[in-house]
This record gives sequence, C-alpha cells and structure tokens, in this order.
Amino acid sequence: MSSRPQIGTTLIRPLVNRLHPYVPGEQPKIRGLIKLNTNENPYPPSPRVLEAIRAAADGRLRLYPNPTAQALREKLARFHGCKPENIIIGNGSDELLAMAVRTFAEPETRLTRTRFRSKARVQFFQPSYSLYPVLAEIHGSEAHRVPLNPDFGLPSLQYLRRRKTWDFRAALSFITTPNAPSGRGISTAELRELCMAQRGVVVLDEAYTDFAYENALALSLDCPHVLVARTFSKAYSLCFQRIGYFVGAPGLIAALDKVRDSYNVNGLGQIAALETLNDLPYYRTNFEKIIATREYLGRALAELGFQVFPSQTNFILVRPPRFSASKWLKKFRARKILVRWFKDAALKNFLRISIGTPEEIEALLKAAKAVLRRR
Amino acid sequence: MSSRPQIGTTLIRPLVNRLHPYVPGEQPKIRGLIKLNTNENPYPPSPRVLEAIRAAADGRLRLYPNPTAQALREKLARFHGCKPENIIIGNGSDELLAMAVRTFAEPETRLTRTRFRSKARVQFFQPSYSLYPVLAEIHGSEAHRVPLNPDFGLPSLQYLRRRKTWDFRAALSFITTPNAPSGRGISTAELRELCMAQRGVVVLDEAYTDFAYENALALSLDCPHVLVARTFSKAYSLCFQRIGYFVGAPGLIAALDKVRDSYNVNGLGQIAALETLNDLPYYRTNFEKIIATREYLGRALAELGFQVFPSQTNFILVRPPRFSASKWLKKFRARKILVRWFKDAALKNFLRISIGTPEEIEALLKAAKAVLRRR
Repeated sequence: MSSRPQIGTTLIRPLVNRLHPYVPGEQPKIRGLIKLNTNENPYPPSPRVLEAIRAAADGRLRLYPNPTAQALREKLARFHGCKPENIIIGNGSDELLAMAVRTFAEPETRLTRTRFRSKARVQFFQPSYSLYPVLAEIHGSEAHRVPLNPDFGLPSLQYLRRRKTWDFRAALSFITTPNAPSGRGISTAELRELCMAQRGVVVLDEAYTDFAYENALALSLDCPHVLVARTFSKAYSLCFQRIGYFVGAPGLIAALDKVRDSYNVNGLGQIAALETLNDLPYYRTNFEKIIATREYLGRALAELGFQVFPSQTNFILVRPPRFSASKWLKKFRARKILVRWFKDAALKNFLRISIGTPEEIEALLKAAKAVLRRR
Repeated sequence: MSSRPQIGTTLIRPLVNRLHPYVPGEQPKIRGLIKLNTNENPYPPSPRVLEAIRAAADGRLRLYPNPTAQALREKLARFHGCKPENIIIGNGSDELLAMAVRTFAEPETRLTRTRFRSKARVQFFQPSYSLYPVLAEIHGSEAHRVPLNPDFGLPSLQYLRRRKTWDFRAALSFITTPNAPSGRGISTAELRELCMAQRGVVVLDEAYTDFAYENALALSLDCPHVLVARTFSKAYSLCFQRIGYFVGAPGLIAALDKVRDSYNVNGLGQIAALETLNDLPYYRTNFEKIIATREYLGRALAELGFQVFPSQTNFILVRPPRFSASKWLKKFRARKILVRWFKDAALKNFLRISIGTPEEIEALLKAAKAVLRRR
C-alpha cells in the first residue's frame, strides 16, 4: 500500500479546498418546537396532491421519470401563457440558480482578472439570498455584492450609475424579488428599468412572489436576457419534493438544458407539482390566510416595540426592542420557538420570522410579551 | 426596448455554446411496448417501500427534507461497515458523477494545456458509460478515452504502462464495473492493482454490482483516493426517485459535500431508500430471478446464432446474425420490443438487451425467431 497517493489537498481542486464546508440548517428534534426559521408554508399540500402521490406509489417507480418533466412544462406554459421551450424544471430552484452560474458566468482566470472582469462576475444586492455568493465561489467566479438602500429598497438607476459599484455588464445578476430576508417588495417598473439597462443575464428570483402585490414574470417573456425563478417549495408547500423552475427566452433555457443532469427531477415531485396546478384555489386561500396572519403579526409586534419592515413575503424582518437580536433568538428558543438570526453586519440587529399558523403566531406573541415582562 | 442586449451567443459562455444539446432518451408511448432499452428492473419496489411512501404523503411535504440525508447515510454506513462520513447521497448517482468532475478535475486552461495536463483530465475506458465525456465537456475538462480490450476486458497494467495511453496521474478516472454496455465483470484483484498504480481519484462505478460475482467496495474504504458509486435505480427498482451514493474516504466525501446543492435529495426518495434497506431479501430474490432469466436468454439467443457476451449485469450485449444490429433494432421495434443500439464504431454491430420478466424475454425470443424465419 506504500505506493498509493497521500489523501488531502493534492487530490482535490485548490478551488474546492478553499471553500468553506457547507453547514446544514438546524434540524430541530425538540418535541413541540414551533419552527418559524426557514419560511416553510404552515399549511399542508392540497389533499388532491397527497392523493396523487399515494396513487402513483406503485410499480412505475422502477422506471426513469420523464427526463425533461415534459407534462409539467406544458402545464406551466399554459398557466403562464408561454411555450414549454420557455421553461426548465429544476431539483428545487436552488439547482437552477447553480446551473445559471455554470451556464452564464466564467470561472475567474488571469484573462478575466485583467481584461474581461464582467464575464466572471456573479452580481447581487446585499442583503439577499445567502446562496448566491456560495454558488459563485463553487464555480470560481467573482461574487460581486452591491448594497441595497438602508431601508432594503432597490437603489435608483441614476444612483447605481453614479456610484459605479453596480456592473451593468456583469455576466449574471441575481435579484431577489420580493427581497429576502427583508420581505420588501420591488415594483415591476423598477425591475424593468434595471433590466433594460443590463447587458448580461438577469435572474429575478421570485421565490416569494405569491405573497406579493405584483410579479415580474412578463419581463422574462419580453426580454431575451431575463429569467424568472419560481419554486413550488414555499407557496405550494412542497419543499420536500424539490421542484423549482425558470421562465425565459428559449435560447437561455436551451443553454441551461445543456448543463442539466439528464434525470434531475424526481418522478413523484413531477406528479405532485402537476396536481398542485389542478388545485390552485386551495393554495390561494392559504396565501390569503398567511398574508392576513403576517399583517396581524406585524401590527402586534409593532405594539410591543418591535421595528417591523413591511413585507410582501411569508416572513417578516423585525428589529426587536430592549435586548439584542441574538439574545432574542435564544430567549425564543428557550420557549421552544425557532426564528432566524443572521450574523452579518447589515442584519445582526434583526430577526426574521416565518409566518406560521395563527396558533403558532399567538404562541410567539405570548413568548415575546413574557420576555418583555421579565426584563 | 432598443437598449436591450441581443440574445444569442454573447450571453452564454462559449464553452456552453459549443456543447451539443442534450437529447433525452426515447419515451415510448406505444401501448403494450416491451421496454428493454434502459436497464430498468422489471420488478416493482418492495410493497413495504410503496407503503412507506404512501404513509409519508402528508403534511410533512411542506418541510425541507434532511439536507444531508442523515438517516439514510447512517443506515448505509451500518450496511457497509463504515461511518456516515464515508457516504454522500446524490440525486441519482449521475449527480454525484457530475459533482466528482467539478470537485477533482480542473477546467482546461492555457496552464493545464501546456504543463499540468493531467489536472484537467477526466479519464475512462471505451466503451463505458456514455455520460462521462458529456460531464467532462460541460466542465471544460478533457475527456480522455482509453480503449478496452476487443473482448471488453480491462487491459493489463503492463499493457497500459507500455502503451502510455492511460494517464496514471489523471485527476479523475471513471471505471464502470461491471462494464456497461458490455456487461463484462472486472475482478476486484484487477481493479485493486490498477487503483494502487493510480495517483489521481478513481471512481468505481458499480451501478450494476448486485448482478455480479463480486464488488470492490472494500477498495473505497482501503484507499484514500478511491470512491465507489452505487445507485438504488437499477437493482432496487427506484429510478423514479433518483437516489445514488458514493462511498469513500472522509476527505473526498467532505470535498464533494462542499459543491453539493444544500437540499439535493428529495424527501420521499430518502424514505423509499431507507425502507428498501429494511427489505433486502425481497430484492435478493429479484436479483436471482433476473440472473436466471439473463442466463436463459443468453443460451437461447446463442442457439439462434447470436454472439452473446457473458454478463454480470441486468442486461446482455449481443451481436445479432444475418442482419445489421441497426436493422434488428427496427425489426424488434416493429414487433413492439424496444432494445438499445449504440451508433459508435466500437458498438454499432451490437444490441444491448435489458433483462425483463420471463414473459417479456419469451416475447423477445419469439420475435427473434420470427425475424429469422422471414429472411
């Protein structure tokens, strides 16, 4: 065995060795814990969806699923008023975000560092979805961060042009709309203006759009360089089965398809997503409930002295009174309520709270009052 | 709209533009078609697996699945006599093969072309799994093909050294064992000898190992540079749910984990795979049936004048008599039987036939006899 190579850095790409190991999200095993930390929908999928899965759990599981999720793409195309060629399905929208980086952005090389910097640039506003820089680093591209306004609003085009921090030629720009983790909505007019000025590919990441006033899907069908990302995870209670999709110009979709794993979308997930689209009124009722609970929670926390940011998502960002946000995290946790706190400087004074059922939200408010009473 | 960029090559990486578009496998919609073209298992998953899926189709679908498939890794670790740190689960083993390329092989650059060629080399024997060169090209690495012996056996170490075509320093080498599409087994002794001489990472792709005399899993636990790929698709009738895994040294597994999508394995797939491991005798009975059918089919086709290669998989490679292989493909198809034909020079005279049920195989033999009678 003496001739075998030494394990360690030599077998692994230097780029991968430099990456930080992935730390999976907290998997609480505490009985009775109220989980308001990962923006999951508090309501189950439609009974029709559950029944479709049960009915499909038979001998067909031995067969490969449809490689392009053809039936789902056709149904989504009818739903969005486009063609199946405008749509690609992913193993969650996270997979598609990763594929977008590999399809549109170059890894950094001496050439991109000296002359074609924009070609290796993955650009996004800060704060937004924390996955974007991770994906850029895995691919060896530059993670290019541009701050949002202090109120989490989109900086104006004039401001971006004047400050010269935003790269209008970046190979790929991600825009989370509505923004996460602030919950703030972005108007389609603003997005259109920015997209029109942009020379590289733009992904409008609409993971939370069903809880918002408007969406920007039309931009992905109007503009040959704009993709809209959607997911069945949040609004459609299907995190477990990993179904997301992009809508955009056939040329961009075909390019993404070339880097796609042949059978990337599991079969029961395809069936569940298809049946979801057959029962949209069920989900719309849930959106309304979640929005009503969100507005109630915002008002109630404001009354307790929390600074509450207006939200168009299924979570709210708040700045808690009296104690630091990280202390509140622990105090909630001690009362079996899990919310989300982000370490980074721009967010460390805030908590993000997913909208649960009215009962879960009452429990949270009760806990907050107890914390404030005890001093 | 005049300021928006032109769609086309400029938005997409030149590397991606050069890729051939992916052509999905044939999705036959013909009623009563006998599908012997993609090596799927003819038997359904265990009733316990189907029941576990049905029982899990409830409100939990709204939650994210376990990000690292922890319970499945723990169970597989007990099964293989190793630790969870030796195992990573993929969205099918295809996803892990793609991740291996991204983790261990560099994309080609001027530097790798001139001085460090091996670092950007993804190496494999020909013929073997046709996905390997696709994965290398997507990543921008060199797909380095080395021919097998004419009988599809592994060339000897001495021969490989003398011929200098095999790169003992290649960043990543894929070895399909048993080989596909020939079905030929490779002895663990031969594999060990080759692995011991190899300085880069080796993936032993054991997709069909449950139908073989022996497997090389021990190599992945003995050698710090060897990974073994396994899948629940073929032997465990679970193509639909996309579950594969790698076994290997914790250092290699941790590196792969860094490039893994956070929630890459769907929840019902995790549940199905876990329950599969609770009912292994059911599957072992199926392996025996498939092996018996394979041996019967081989003898019967040999009697009809087909050249039959010995197989240790759930398919056989045959060279048909009288007509060309591509003509036989059409003749079988006309009789509603789908088998596989490969265009490339080394394989164009052969057909690959997946082992179906005894009834399906009788239908195939009947069709073959009818073709031969008609002239």
